[in-house]
Amino acid sequence: MDFQALLEHYRNAVDTGIGDFLPASDERPARLHAAMRYCMKSGGKRLRPILVLAGHALGNSEFDPIPAAVAVECLHAYSLIHDDLPCIDDSDFRHNRPACHIKFGEAIAVLTGDALLTHAFFLLSSAYGGEPSLAAALALDLSYAAGTRKLIGGQMEDISTDGDATDPARLEYIHENKTAALVSASLKMGVRLSGQSPGDIENAAETGRLLGLAFQLVDDILDATGDADALGKPTGQDARNETMSAVKVLGIDEARRRVGEYTERAVETCRRMTGDTRFLVSLVKALEHRVR
Amino acid sequence: MDFQALLEHYRNAVDTGIGDFLPASDERPARLHAAMRYCMKSGGKRLRPILVLAGHALGNSEFDPIPAAVAVECLHAYSLIHDDLPCIDDSDFRHNRPACHIKFGEAIAVLTGDALLTHAFFLLSSAYGGEPSLAAALALDLSYAAGTRKLIGGQMEDISTDGDATDPARLEYIHENKTAALVSASLKMGVRLSGQSPGDIENAAETGRLLGLAFQLVDDILDATGDADALGKPTGQDARNETMSAVKVLGIDEARRRVGEYTERAVETCRRMTGDTRFLVSLVKALEHRVR
Repeated sequence: MDFQALLEHYRNAVDTGIGDFLPASDERPARLHAAMRYCMKSGGKRLRPILVLAGHALGNSEFDPIPAAVAVECLHAYSLIHDDLPCIDDSDFRHNRPACHIKFGEAIAVLTGDALLTHAFFLLSSAYGGEPSLAAALALDLSYAAGTRKLIGGQMEDISTDGDATDPARLEYIHENKTAALVSASLKMGVRLSGQSPGDIENAAETGRLLGLAFQLVDDILDATGDADALGKPTGQDARNETMSAVKVLGIDEARRRVGEYTERAVETCRRMTGDTRFLVSLVKALEHRVR
Repeated sequence: MDFQALLEHYRNAVDTGIGDFLPASDERPARLHAAMRYCMKSGGKRLRPILVLAGHALGNSEFDPIPAAVAVECLHAYSLIHDDLPCIDDSDFRHNRPACHIKFGEAIAVLTGDALLTHAFFLLSSAYGGEPSLAAALALDLSYAAGTRKLIGGQMEDISTDGDATDPARLEYIHENKTAALVSASLKMGVRLSGQSPGDIENAAETGRLLGLAFQLVDDILDATGDADALGKPTGQDARNETMSAVKVLGIDEARRRVGEYTERAVETCRRMTGDTRFLVSLVKALEHRVR
């Protein structure tokens, strides 16, 4: 299969997995389950779960990567729902649709985020319960990446108004933790599921990290220069808000230069893994030039 | 040791464990870590972590129950922080101190709840990583009890304004899920850590469930009749809010009768477990007559 066909194949597998591994919308509490499904519906790029599937495909293990792919997407969706809340970023739109708190109200949005976060760990511990070493390792990967030392720490720094909004080191801390940590964990978890070596798992983590850094820089660039319709959310948010942005801190030329550099390093690290890395390399390169 | 001394001993062990197993307040993101510690500070009854320790003490295993005890308290604290938010219960006080969103602001309160929930799973998967079967089983116990089919489901029903506020079946659904599920999981996890038999683990879950049901009924009774200073939060909240309360639905006499019934059944089930159950039996009985 060529790159586009395989990408589409993975995306469909993720969508099917989400349908299968979330509680049914008619199961009590039905409105909450409906909200979880609404927020997990197609519209996003599915980068993180696709990395789980592509990482898994490097080896020949019998483990099913789908529950882990759904778990990382649950984690990502929860972080967006809570980010969008009025008391945090106050964003009304996400993926061209009303944000969770606009559609379901603020209280349900808080609980929907909580539910998706909890469900991620339920999925890992239930689906891989027959392979406890794997289940425990995946839960450790995800809980570390999602914790205060990584994702939530980045988010916390992002909302602090007392930091220096022009400090490149602070910007890197935010990108490293708020974005790169979960992208890194996703590819790492995929390669862990592939049965490949510890060395491969480490290279996966580093590839994902570099990809995540490039990805967030492109996000900042698109917020400043991109098309709101294609992005599914208003642009120019970073300029209006206190939010730190690579474009504000580094200037657009330096931000673009860094995207190129991180992409190149990600490709190099990726090629060090055993197995057929062509899809992953193409994915890393494609993300450098994305417009949404 | 007599009951009171042992209770005190467990409570101190929990407090020490919380100090040891939460990120340091001066570690970045410092303000978030400070908020986590503020919300986990002494003041609560520590019922859930004490049940982990007392369950563990029924056997002779070498496993350290402290990380699991801290994990269930993190879970409980997160649920209170998000409950207290303006968009949910809008409660300004908890344990005689300003609630998290009053002390730190709403955005940090959302993130502090998220951080404690995530940290619970990080603790289980990191501290018991050397015993993956145990780590995976504990993570499954906790993620199931905390999920939409249990804790969050009960919370969701509790905030729904379209339900029948006089329906006893709905009240039981709320008590069963919002409160009893986590109390049950706590004792179950403790007995799982004790190395006792699967039958004991099942009896632990049922004892905890019955205790949790009695506990929530007493909570509702104290809200209607108790002393605000002793409770550390305003009383009469159920009457003022839309919240369902056993006192409103069942009347105070029937609520008290049920407390007695659940307590008696909890004691019976507790005595079926192997090991020295005297402390647990005394604890169940003591909670029937608590005033805070």
